Amino acid sequence: MYRTHNCGELRKSDIGKQVTLSGWVQKIRDKGFMIWVDMRDRYGISQLIFDEQRTSKDLLNQAKSLGREFVIQIHGEVIERASKNQNIPTGDIEILVKELTILNSSTTPPFTIEDNTDGGEELRMKYRYLDIRREPIKKNLILRHEITQQVRKYLSDNSFIEVETPCLIKSTPEGARDFIVPSRINEGDFYALPQSPQTFKQLLMVAGLDKYFQIVKCFRDEDLRADRQPEFTQIDCEMAFVEQDDVLNTFEGLITDIFKKIKKIDINKFPKITYEQAIEIYGTDKPDIRFGMEFVELNDVCQHKDFNMFNSAELVVGIVVNGGNTFTRKEIDKYIDWIKTPQVGAMGMVYLRCNDDGGFKSSVDKFYDQADLKNIAEKTKANKGDLIMILSGDKNKVRSQLGALRLELAKNLGLRNSEEFAPLWVVDFPLLNWDEEENKFHAMHHPFTSPKPDQIDLLKTSPSSVKANAYDLVINGNEIGGGSIRIHNKSVQEQMFKCLGFTKKESEEQFGFLMNAFKYGSPPHGGIAFGLDRLVAILGGSETIRDFIAFPKNNAGRDVMIDSPSKISKEQLKELKLKQDL
Amino acid sequence: MYRTHNCGELRKSDIGKQVTLSGWVQKIRDKGFMIWVDMRDRYGISQLIFDEQRTSKDLLNQAKSLGREFVIQIHGEVIERASKNQNIPTGDIEILVKELTILNSSTTPPFTIEDNTDGGEELRMKYRYLDIRREPIKKNLILRHEITQQVRKYLSDNSFIEVETPCLIKSTPEGARDFIVPSRINEGDFYALPQSPQTFKQLLMVAGLDKYFQIVKCFRDEDLRADRQPEFTQIDCEMAFVEQDDVLNTFEGLITDIFKKIKKIDINKFPKITYEQAIEIYGTDKPDIRFGMEFVELNDVCQHKDFNMFNSAELVVGIVVNGGNTFTRKEIDKYIDWIKTPQVGAMGMVYLRCNDDGGFKSSVDKFYDQADLKNIAEKTKANKGDLIMILSGDKNKVRSQLGALRLELAKNLGLRNSEEFAPLWVVDFPLLNWDEEENKFHAMHHPFTSPKPDQIDLLKTSPSSVKANAYDLVINGNEIGGGSIRIHNKSVQEQMFKCLGFTKKESEEQFGFLMNAFKYGSPPHGGIAFGLDRLVAILGGSETIRDFIAFPKNNAGRDVMIDSPSKISKEQLKELKLKQDL
Repeated sequence: MYRTHNCGELRKSDIGKQVTLSGWVQKIRDKGFMIWVDMRDRYGISQLIFDEQRTSKDLLNQAKSLGREFVIQIHGEVIERASKNQNIPTGDIEILVKELTILNSSTTPPFTIEDNTDGGEELRMKYRYLDIRREPIKKNLILRHEITQQVRKYLSDNSFIEVETPCLIKSTPEGARDFIVPSRINEGDFYALPQSPQTFKQLLMVAGLDKYFQIVKCFRDEDLRADRQPEFTQIDCEMAFVEQDDVLNTFEGLITDIFKKIKKIDINKFPKITYEQAIEIYGTDKPDIRFGMEFVELNDVCQHKDFNMFNSAELVVGIVVNGGNTFTRKEIDKYIDWIKTPQVGAMGMVYLRCNDDGGFKSSVDKFYDQADLKNIAEKTKANKGDLIMILSGDKNKVRSQLGALRLELAKNLGLRNSEEFAPLWVVDFPLLNWDEEENKFHAMHHPFTSPKPDQIDLLKTSPSSVKANAYDLVINGNEIGGGSIRIHNKSVQEQMFKCLGFTKKESEEQFGFLMNAFKYGSPPHGGIAFGLDRLVAILGGSETIRDFIAFPKNNAGRDVMIDSPSKISKEQLKELKLKQDL
Repeated sequence: MYRTHNCGELRKSDIGKQVTLSGWVQKIRDKGFMIWVDMRDRYGISQLIFDEQRTSKDLLNQAKSLGREFVIQIHGEVIERASKNQNIPTGDIEILVKELTILNSSTTPPFTIEDNTDGGEELRMKYRYLDIRREPIKKNLILRHEITQQVRKYLSDNSFIEVETPCLIKSTPEGARDFIVPSRINEGDFYALPQSPQTFKQLLMVAGLDKYFQIVKCFRDEDLRADRQPEFTQIDCEMAFVEQDDVLNTFEGLITDIFKKIKKIDINKFPKITYEQAIEIYGTDKPDIRFGMEFVELNDVCQHKDFNMFNSAELVVGIVVNGGNTFTRKEIDKYIDWIKTPQVGAMGMVYLRCNDDGGFKSSVDKFYDQADLKNIAEKTKANKGDLIMILSGDKNKVRSQLGALRLELAKNLGLRNSEEFAPLWVVDFPLLNWDEEENKFHAMHHPFTSPKPDQIDLLKTSPSSVKANAYDLVINGNEIGGGSIRIHNKSVQEQMFKCLGFTKKESEEQFGFLMNAFKYGSPPHGGIAFGLDRLVAILGGSETIRDFIAFPKNNAGRDVMIDSPSKISKEQLKELKLKQDL
């Protein structure tokens, strides 16, 4: 037996016990006549002591031969520490070692195994198995485990069945970003890896399973963006005989339960706002509502005052920075420069200082007198000491620019507390998206998303105004989940395909298989999928999903630890009847 | 809201309640003036009643328009049934329908949605979403869900952490059966799908996670055998600082818990036998021990009696069929014919009847007198009324032939009760396997499997006799799981590579990556992996794993429901810089 206890569990009450422990050498303090070794395993750290008076010379020498990250087994007696360490649970005791076995030596690690390591991202990824020994990463993986366990428990307790759907599926014409997998046995044929189990979960509803979930790997061979992974994990769910509120209530329950059980945080009813409101108030469909700074539309108080930039703008809109009048001119200029950078793309910004004396000072004093400025300030509900920032221009663009500015301000002003959580539902997304280039509608969610029940007739007369029976869960400015009620009625589905510009033949080719299944009694159904990687990261107080994946890939889709993807042999390609055409 | 209750929950105590139910039309009995409809959902069946006296004419007519598998919603009152049905939990009540909404109609299904369907395997697979509506398949999927939930609970409660390992990994030279995945972004490079997370779980032990598990999809592009799937699911586990007994105790605990919680069956300590014993007593390394019929070696009582076939045989070995003396000559001949078929391959069989009068009658009476036969019978411990079947020949072949005969007899005699479960551990497998063709050793498990602790020195002097620190879990004649203690010592690993005939360069190329990780303090570790599909099938009382997979592939690796694998477009191939070379 390698151990009687782990390195995190011995306490004062164990004093006098003979114990065997195994673990890694974390730290050695060698005073010559006395040696302390911090011994680490997943569960904690125990201090070992060797000293001239109580330890044999051989054993002392053996202890001196230890190095960082050596794997050792010790046998000894639990004794009370002379100087206690209140920072660790085992800090009252130490182990007077009587036997020491070196189970394995270790080369010096390429970076320190400490909370704040000296290893850079690249090095940490290459030696991920050492990175995971570090407390912060280990904690993240344990958090991920706890969350998935709790998700499964909650959903199971609520009659959901976890069903594994296949990983080797079929590439579809619209699946341009499918990973494909050549089949050796079915010569010339290919499987595809699922971008999501969408089709299968809808089939499981047709199959009568009623409530389905799965924590499942999905795959997308996408052009790469920061913090995207070619393989990612979803909590995928679907329910039959439900309307939107049934779905929202069920999954609000799930998320509330996770916060309660994992983070010990009670979250009240999630606010629900429409897509339109979100865009109008926050300039984004995934607003971070941990802080206010809501948009105020100012056309009525800003236009027709001889200031052409505002007068010609479709929208004039501002936000109030509480206490922002303390910003120096230099600080304000920095924001102006920032919003003019290509990634934000605003033309300029107007600001208005609300002085402590009740007066106003703006960058457009030439066009607006104190009464005008007071009007604006009153409209925004700004107080003395506040700063108002105003953008103008094309409605869509200016909202997204102001949304970006709002987040930048929040970041700089520390308004985004990573230990605070503000979930909300965004609902009533547009059903269709007009593609200027292709001159046709696209489904904003997917072609099986149902219109809002009372808007089905609008599909024929005014498709662009139809709202979808679709919803997103947003937490702290991140889209954590999204879903919809599906179309289960054949004539609505046909109308939808018509709007999307599919001929009967095209819709048959692309979706015939699922449509065929729907002929045999498809129940009304709907669902949602959550991005597990992101959810765990948010709960872990971070926005870097890589730190919550055991073996992540980098921004180029590469696993630098195992050096993948990589070349394969000609023989392998030949067996698959493939040739490279580089 | 689509329902106030599901179709399985209404009882006598609900009589008088107004309820709304949704579900499928299972069956319609139309007496003209009265119509009963069985309405089904996942949770059960509720009987609806429409009758002339209490139902409006319109509603009655609407009820008459229903067809099998229509999706309906009804509103009505729970009433007591005139003639109760004790076979279903809702059999005391029925619902007098007041409103009926047809949510969806259904085309007539290609087979009946009944426990014993008229649909053949092929048709059921093609319309799997209808097949799953059938109670037996639905039950199997729910059983699978319950087992995976319980596995996760047990392991989590025992400090295991579930960690997701990557699905897009790297092809290895020995990975001839890897599925490969071309990367679009990393031109000319390929990922591979994992045959198992073996490397990653060992890395997690190096990473200090101590106890890991994962319920995980694995992939093998294998030549096809009956009941094999190209994608299959494993319960994959690994532990650090363990010896063989620690692993066996832990997972005996898991399996015992599953039987207890899922099947309500108490299973005592699992027997443990060595590989050698299994082969000698049952002719297989995965013995079905639900019944006896153990082998008895008969060389000493059968040889040197002038019967050349026995005298020239390396092994003469028999089994006793209790009560087998009732077999007719014809029946015995059928077994003789059967064992001579090419898939069994025996040359012939000798039999010995133990008559009720204490005398014996054998097929070799010419060579053996009554005393000789009595000797044989006593050695086998056969009683009056039994039949002894004896095979002879080359040791390895004859054992496997008699093992097959033993199972065939058990099948025909009904000795394999699918509701009885007999798990056992098979241990001490040979470490190495001599490959006659390639004239070298192969690792029987894998190259990181440790020899038994006391046999490490034998690696140098007598590698073929070294036993591995490896173990299999066998239930009812099926290998359910297997694993080993891994080598964590560098010099033992080098010795192992030497035995396998790897040069330093070759072992570096093939395993350098893992070996490199081992340099940084690898703990002693070991693990096991269970085949989930098989485990669930066994617990479900079946040996057909396909019935326990939601969307299985057929024996040609094809999903006939979605018609996959399939051709992909030239554009897709071009983007991947690949050409077909058929």
